[in-house]
Amino acid sequence: MLDTGRTARRLESYVSGAWRAGQGEAKPLAHAATGEVHALISSDGLDFAGALDWGRRTGGTALRRHTLHDRALMLKAIGQALMAGKDEFYAESLATGATPRDAWPDIDGGIGTMLTFASKARRELPNAHVLPEGPVEMLSRDGSFVGQHILTPLEGVAVHINAFNFPVWGMLEKIAPALIAGVPCVVKPASQTAYLTELVVRRILEMQILPDGALQLICGGVGDLLDHVTGQDAVTFTGSAQTGQKLRTHPAVVQNSVRFTMEADSLNAAILGPDAGPGTPEFDLFVKEVAREMTAKAGQKCTAIRRVLVPAAHEGAVIDALRATLDRTAVGLPDDAQTRMGALVSLGEREGVRARIREIAAEAEIVCGTPDEVRLSSGDAARGAFLNPVLLRCADPFSARAPHEIEAFGPVATVMAYDGVEEAVALAKLGKGSLVSSVFTNDTGVAAEMVRGVAAFHGRIMLGNRDSAKSSTGHGAPLAPLVHGGPGRAGGGEEMGGMRGVKHFMMRSAIQGTPRLLAAVTGEWVPGAPAQQDIHPFRKSLAELRIGDQIVTERREITEADVEHFAHFTGDTFYAHMDREAARANPFFEDRVAHGYLIASFAAGLFVMPEPGPVLANYGVDNLRFLAPVYFGDSLQVRLTCKQITPRDGTVYGEVRWDCCVTNQNQEVVAQYDVLTMVAKTWPLTE
Amino acid sequence: MLDTGRTARRLESYVSGAWRAGQGEAKPLAHAATGEVHALISSDGLDFAGALDWGRRTGGTALRRHTLHDRALMLKAIGQALMAGKDEFYAESLATGATPRDAWPDIDGGIGTMLTFASKARRELPNAHVLPEGPVEMLSRDGSFVGQHILTPLEGVAVHINAFNFPVWGMLEKIAPALIAGVPCVVKPASQTAYLTELVVRRILEMQILPDGALQLICGGVGDLLDHVTGQDAVTFTGSAQTGQKLRTHPAVVQNSVRFTMEADSLNAAILGPDAGPGTPEFDLFVKEVAREMTAKAGQKCTAIRRVLVPAAHEGAVIDALRATLDRTAVGLPDDAQTRMGALVSLGEREGVRARIREIAAEAEIVCGTPDEVRLSSGDAARGAFLNPVLLRCADPFSARAPHEIEAFGPVATVMAYDGVEEAVALAKLGKGSLVSSVFTNDTGVAAEMVRGVAAFHGRIMLGNRDSAKSSTGHGAPLAPLVHGGPGRAGGGEEMGGMRGVKHFMMRSAIQGTPRLLAAVTGEWVPGAPAQQDIHPFRKSLAELRIGDQIVTERREITEADVEHFAHFTGDTFYAHMDREAARANPFFEDRVAHGYLIASFAAGLFVMPEPGPVLANYGVDNLRFLAPVYFGDSLQVRLTCKQITPRDGTVYGEVRWDCCVTNQNQEVVAQYDVLTMVAKTWPLTE
Repeated sequence: MLDTGRTARRLESYVSGAWRAGQGEAKPLAHAATGEVHALISSDGLDFAGALDWGRRTGGTALRRHTLHDRALMLKAIGQALMAGKDEFYAESLATGATPRDAWPDIDGGIGTMLTFASKARRELPNAHVLPEGPVEMLSRDGSFVGQHILTPLEGVAVHINAFNFPVWGMLEKIAPALIAGVPCVVKPASQTAYLTELVVRRILEMQILPDGALQLICGGVGDLLDHVTGQDAVTFTGSAQTGQKLRTHPAVVQNSVRFTMEADSLNAAILGPDAGPGTPEFDLFVKEVAREMTAKAGQKCTAIRRVLVPAAHEGAVIDALRATLDRTAVGLPDDAQTRMGALVSLGEREGVRARIREIAAEAEIVCGTPDEVRLSSGDAARGAFLNPVLLRCADPFSARAPHEIEAFGPVATVMAYDGVEEAVALAKLGKGSLVSSVFTNDTGVAAEMVRGVAAFHGRIMLGNRDSAKSSTGHGAPLAPLVHGGPGRAGGGEEMGGMRGVKHFMMRSAIQGTPRLLAAVTGEWVPGAPAQQDIHPFRKSLAELRIGDQIVTERREITEADVEHFAHFTGDTFYAHMDREAARANPFFEDRVAHGYLIASFAAGLFVMPEPGPVLANYGVDNLRFLAPVYFGDSLQVRLTCKQITPRDGTVYGEVRWDCCVTNQNQEVVAQYDVLTMVAKTWPLTE
Repeated sequence: MLDTGRTARRLESYVSGAWRAGQGEAKPLAHAATGEVHALISSDGLDFAGALDWGRRTGGTALRRHTLHDRALMLKAIGQALMAGKDEFYAESLATGATPRDAWPDIDGGIGTMLTFASKARRELPNAHVLPEGPVEMLSRDGSFVGQHILTPLEGVAVHINAFNFPVWGMLEKIAPALIAGVPCVVKPASQTAYLTELVVRRILEMQILPDGALQLICGGVGDLLDHVTGQDAVTFTGSAQTGQKLRTHPAVVQNSVRFTMEADSLNAAILGPDAGPGTPEFDLFVKEVAREMTAKAGQKCTAIRRVLVPAAHEGAVIDALRATLDRTAVGLPDDAQTRMGALVSLGEREGVRARIREIAAEAEIVCGTPDEVRLSSGDAARGAFLNPVLLRCADPFSARAPHEIEAFGPVATVMAYDGVEEAVALAKLGKGSLVSSVFTNDTGVAAEMVRGVAAFHGRIMLGNRDSAKSSTGHGAPLAPLVHGGPGRAGGGEEMGGMRGVKHFMMRSAIQGTPRLLAAVTGEWVPGAPAQQDIHPFRKSLAELRIGDQIVTERREITEADVEHFAHFTGDTFYAHMDREAARANPFFEDRVAHGYLIASFAAGLFVMPEPGPVLANYGVDNLRFLAPVYFGDSLQVRLTCKQITPRDGTVYGEVRWDCCVTNQNQEVVAQYDVLTMVAKTWPLTE
């Protein structure tokens, strides 16, 4: 059956610092659309325990020497280089059966995800080795015992076991957060399309940007690898529920409480709102999206639409419209410009899809397509894993089981009618947990009721309507800033989700102690920790500035004249500042009070250095709270302390966060906030 | 062996809306210190599938009708009532072998944890049904497609399977976050001390504060309960690793990806810093803490100190000091005022502890205590489960296994010497993941190196030194605002941790769509969502105010005179405002700019209503960012929109968060922030 007319590439694994071929006979991998042997794969005889150990020792130790920003910058450089050389990945991707359009979310999407992580990490995380999280919690009345959470990199490896359908994205979306976290990765792609992953890993390693041991690749089976995982390792799995459950109950995973994330089968729904009948833009968007999700990557996407939930009144119209679109979908060779849908990944998979269609068809009728006959615009149906789209209709969706539980993982979906939002919600839940569903409606009431109704069963919900027709990223696309994963049958995993994804590979520890000891651990100043007062800290560049550098200002009295003046100058003549009787009637005040903005303005006047210096700008204020009223005659003093220093690569400055505490003459705190400044790395500036 | 001289109470389970006795012969539970039969227990014949179903339908539906604050207020009321009636819990607790001092963390600590959750939830979470989380993410350039995460309650039950050592705290620390999340609970206490849990549950249910079905109790075995869990349920387990691993691999748990949290065996360490030799306050604190943690609750605490890591130079001194303290620890009846340490929970447990001591002693020497001989100040060693403290010393801790792996779960610890911080870190890690370790040092360098070294292996780390000697809550105490749990052998769980604990029982879903549809789902206004402009929104009480109520102000020009005037008035004569040449040399500015605080002050002047009205005060500002410089002649306009409304029970006002967007004459955003106000529920105020 297999054509060996061209030389097939023998894939290698990169483990313990070298590219290594597996021993013995390698398994042939066929081109999805032509049947030719495209590559050979084997990992027999590789030392997996050694690879894990090498990753932990060499890779982990090296990665942890860098800061979070350093590691994000490595990924930025890798992502940019991969993007520049992506053409060869598109060429190699054709062998998977994917058209270039199908390959876009895999290749551009995967690299883009990596770049988004690299960029968000530098924007949202400190440039540090330890990641403090959340506020400092007061654990004693006198403030001498406090607590805070910190995140530190796990000291193991992240083992990523991926599915065949996204050989590039599947790897990059997982290694990006892990590497930023400081955790080395071992990637094990599904054998069927491992050639594409292997090519990308070769390119990444050739760049020599990552430290040795940060990234390893296993082409072929994982052998005894999981026997050697420890409590510091993490395993992520994307694939079938059956395999996932086997891995999740692996003795070493269970005994060592290994973090295990799973993305599995999911019977995602697209729901047409009751308001979105034929003739509305939402109806057309819905039909287009269902057809696209059924045919993109020949339906081999974990997020594809499997269940099409429509108001009973519009069921016929939806089926007619879908049939018209699906019937004219040209199926053929992935590199043929006419092709709208390429091949399934293998002939074996095609038989699997057909078998699953038969299972669903036992409880539903086929209303479009003939699974056993293939109509092609190009290619050979006997050698390539082609299959035309198949649409089913289930007349009794509340009693049927298969349409809610059998994931065809091909160009297949089932239409089901509902009567009222409550029924739509109930049907969506019969999927027992999904990665994503979409609701097409222009009605805010429908959107709120549907989403709140089904949210507990979904990792992601997309709302489609006319106003986002052009800008929507679509039902199928997981996005780096948002979580990807779903409860129940979808595996219970949570990936990506912005910096949540990075934290997944770190350990959260609660640290308790005095402010002084806590600050030493986190590298950030904490109220109560020691502070040093020498020259004005605004005179110090980043090179000189230290956490705890502090200025305590002179005092300034606030007079009635100040408040009157400020009120008329700014226009803020709120009665609490102007009218004694009215102020006293307010539940919070005993008399006329100063404006909060006046307090903050006077505070700045007290701590600012007028002359040019390393502090370049005040770009913001965080968590400003006015904690006690300021009355006429009160005298204000500011204590400003350097709290957090974030140097930025590639610029002449960094960010400094200052703790700003304004007190009155009775040492009561009247205002508390963070002042955010840009500070030069050296002074004078040298660009 | 069992004395039936007094009438033993037959425990009941509260399932499916009624207190029910198990069928058949009940198992006797002995008083730990006297051996008398204290209670009888059986859950045979109960319908567990029915109980889960009743909880989901009746309890879950009722809880979800309430807001997060409503549910927190229920817990506040319950906690206050339990605290008022705690004496009977202390009396009942004596049967567990615990002294009143031992019972404090269980009873007062448990109720306090519940009250802390109730209070933090109202302070940190919105008063809503849906909990939006994190920022709105821009998913399209034009802002027409955005995303945000929301959390909604799981629609199942939380099954809490608890250990014998904290019959009250173990229940309350788990039901508090689950109930606030909106998830009904089924509590299954360990049989041995279930009588105390049962008593507390009776009192809670008698209050009739919780809706029916929100809380169920199983006294006895759980039978087939786990066969019936679904992907919407969550299971938490505290107990032995062996049992935990069995539950974690239960087919229904695995197949449905049930959230499973486990707190298990943990070989927690206390580390004496190299700086903390005899004569330092830290040395004394260390010895006191080790002795206390060994003997509190007779060492039956998951957080107790099991491994005592000391600098080699001080090993002898530590052992001598500990021996002196332990030898004079009076062991006896828990209600005897002389008693410093009560009984283990049962005679069977005592045999277990002795067996585990023998295992450890195979690799260590006993330096204090004789496990097979009991010395008592009161009570009968044959009938009560008494055991004096046992201290061991392991001479070769890097090759020994048992001291790092065998959790005696009694008054037992092993001293091990280290040489240098690196060795101390390595020894601590040999525990393969712990709930907590403590480090006693007054040296910031030691603190930072130790904590950063061991953090990835620990859920919590306490730093002890002279300055927190009086205020520290101690090594052993998990605290509601901080996470409780540890990686690896500690089970990999994470409980409490403030609002993280609540979120554990909710589903996080990413919602994508237009700002209008997203706002309808979250109940919070999102930039780009529709806004309505009628009367000034500051004229509206909470009863009238709606999300999206907006005012767009007049324009105001900023002149050179304004900036000069503000600079001299406030004292903020920063060069960028005052000196054209210097301003132009700054990398961010092209000319002299207005003060950020002037922009915010003028903005307030533009949107404020001077006359008395429902907006009572501006109590703060969040996330203020100055996004573009304001030059002389620029004209500012403010768009202020009602974003979030948080009515507060028990007050005449609530909090309103306003989106404040300041633009210049080119529609560029120059400043963006949230204005926080207190707004009256009705106007005029009626107190």
